[in-house]
Amino acid sequence: MSVAAFLMAGSALAQTPSPTNLGRNSYPQVGPDNRVTFRVNAPRATSLTLSLGKDYPMVKDEKGFWTVTSDPQVEGFHYYSLKTGGLTFNDPSVHSFFGTGRDCSAIEVPEDPASAAFYTPQQGVPQGAVRSIRYWSEVCGQWRRMFVYTPAGYEQNPGKRYPVLYLQHGGGEDETGWIYQGFADVILDNLVAEGKAVPMIIVMVSGVAQKADGSGDGFEAMVTEEVIPLVDKRFRTLADRDNRAVAGLSWGAKQAYDLGLGYRDLFSWIGGFSGIIVIGEFRVRPAGYEDPEKFAAAYDGVFSDPKWFNENYHLLFIANGEAEGSHLMGMSALLKERGIENVFYQSPRTAHEWLTWRRCLKEFAKRLFK
Amino acid sequence: MSVAAFLMAGSALAQTPSPTNLGRNSYPQVGPDNRVTFRVNAPRATSLTLSLGKDYPMVKDEKGFWTVTSDPQVEGFHYYSLKTGGLTFNDPSVHSFFGTGRDCSAIEVPEDPASAAFYTPQQGVPQGAVRSIRYWSEVCGQWRRMFVYTPAGYEQNPGKRYPVLYLQHGGGEDETGWIYQGFADVILDNLVAEGKAVPMIIVMVSGVAQKADGSGDGFEAMVTEEVIPLVDKRFRTLADRDNRAVAGLSWGAKQAYDLGLGYRDLFSWIGGFSGIIVIGEFRVRPAGYEDPEKFAAAYDGVFSDPKWFNENYHLLFIANGEAEGSHLMGMSALLKERGIENVFYQSPRTAHEWLTWRRCLKEFAKRLFK
Repeated sequence: MSVAAFLMAGSALAQTPSPTNLGRNSYPQVGPDNRVTFRVNAPRATSLTLSLGKDYPMVKDEKGFWTVTSDPQVEGFHYYSLKTGGLTFNDPSVHSFFGTGRDCSAIEVPEDPASAAFYTPQQGVPQGAVRSIRYWSEVCGQWRRMFVYTPAGYEQNPGKRYPVLYLQHGGGEDETGWIYQGFADVILDNLVAEGKAVPMIIVMVSGVAQKADGSGDGFEAMVTEEVIPLVDKRFRTLADRDNRAVAGLSWGAKQAYDLGLGYRDLFSWIGGFSGIIVIGEFRVRPAGYEDPEKFAAAYDGVFSDPKWFNENYHLLFIANGEAEGSHLMGMSALLKERGIENVFYQSPRTAHEWLTWRRCLKEFAKRLFK
Repeated sequence: MSVAAFLMAGSALAQTPSPTNLGRNSYPQVGPDNRVTFRVNAPRATSLTLSLGKDYPMVKDEKGFWTVTSDPQVEGFHYYSLKTGGLTFNDPSVHSFFGTGRDCSAIEVPEDPASAAFYTPQQGVPQGAVRSIRYWSEVCGQWRRMFVYTPAGYEQNPGKRYPVLYLQHGGGEDETGWIYQGFADVILDNLVAEGKAVPMIIVMVSGVAQKADGSGDGFEAMVTEEVIPLVDKRFRTLADRDNRAVAGLSWGAKQAYDLGLGYRDLFSWIGGFSGIIVIGEFRVRPAGYEDPEKFAAAYDGVFSDPKWFNENYHLLFIANGEAEGSHLMGMSALLKERGIENVFYQSPRTAHEWLTWRRCLKEFAKRLFK
């Protein structure tokens, strides 16, 4: 995607066209009631459907423009597609973002500019940079790419070392998500400038990592044996567990918990946004938490001694969006009942999407490495 | 676009599926004769057309898969689209690249691995990094993004300063093109590792830059008054004309010539790939070159004293692809006839696409700052 989508979501929230529109496209348009109107020119098409949470049949006018207005949307970032004849594809009038397993159309339903300020570029705020770095993964047997955010001043202070946050995207997304959809770099630039967060390095890799030998998921091996050593070699990191955090969203939250709780020698700060700590059966949410034996055995016994856990883990941060429901609030409460200290945050109104996760990152980053 | 497309074009040239395919998608498939077969599932579509240079009607099988095989394609990188009912859209089975004014589908018709080695990541080659940097343009009245490549060792040598190449994309593309389609970072990493190029910084900005006041194109003002000062402030550059180059492709070549020839105090190395130096009328290629007065007056008289030009400009590099025709060879010859030294390079076989420009960058970069 290009610079417009990357920036305008932050800078053009007052506009009616979706900030993700290409160039000067006036559609999709977000109405004051957060209904979104889509418009596509396809004079000879026989049917066209908008897929945004649910399917909306579009209607063609005499000029060949198909339009439809959605139900009111929760403010935030939403993927969507067009469908015709059984084919799902992108709206050519907007930028695409890697999500749903492909470069996918998306709209931003803006919140008020004051609320959006924390992920909006601010003039005069010293900026970090996002590096794209290619690396060979022996575990996966392929060249891969990581994004690495370094804070403002990284280059001006060649003697300074920084703590590191490993930050994972959600299912169907990749290492670009936290920058293009999440504005992680803007969020940290703004927090650091306000003195609300410690300058830190953020590392983003794709969570899709099959082992080269076909023996299954290589994600944890890749991160712990290849990514972390490479980052500690290439960047001026504080390379110990006290200065290493891991967080993720949705599927990436599960990966973050698995890394943070499963590799206690590597991480001491953990954040899970809109995802659960899996103990026992996945499908029954509190399963395992209710069973003292399963709970004590989880992650090689990391929860078996709450006193040890609370003394050795600096932060266990659990968060989601209000519209996602209360199960994570329940998970946080269950952990507290069992003596495991944790911080719970709920993003007002928002759903299982990037506005929730931008807010989660802000709340998490403020608490890191302090 | 995601890591796969970004890397596989370099690393999977022997494969039949296009290197730009998403995940494990087997279509599009490139045949040994460089015909490309496309396959899309749209059981209820009434018609589907492949647009790759020309339109190819697709044919539906009993399972609802639409397929078509193209004419043999020139090796290299080609944008394409699908069409139905008057709507042009992307193939959901491949990564998209910003081109043709939107995130657009593309295929890579591989050349032999040996020829592709120079833009293929090589294990053991020290790597630079590509930074994404947001900047406020007062000229354009908007936040914009630049990509900045710094060579291997940039961080390890805090006392070292580097020459800078300003590198422009083509029409309908943006600042991502030279990295995602062009592999400029891989090309420079490999050249530098072989001792064939001087370590340099490469700056890429979008060439689409309308003035905030609506008074027209702000590109030159933005680059000369905002981008160059910012780069010289944020990076360890050698900030003089002897250490500053500008190049571009197609429309970007025109911009590179306008900057390089129009701002002689800023640049002394110029590269134009698949684009012309406009003297006189644009549509008649040699127009102006034939007219001594127009020629001497061009760019405030930069060509009026060939001796001065040849002594003060270190390189005027003109290049294109063989399949693009001979007009740039003619332009190079005309300039030489008039005493203006220049180097001409033609990429064997290739067309007006990124394989041509990868090769042009390689040949240009080898000659820079020496």
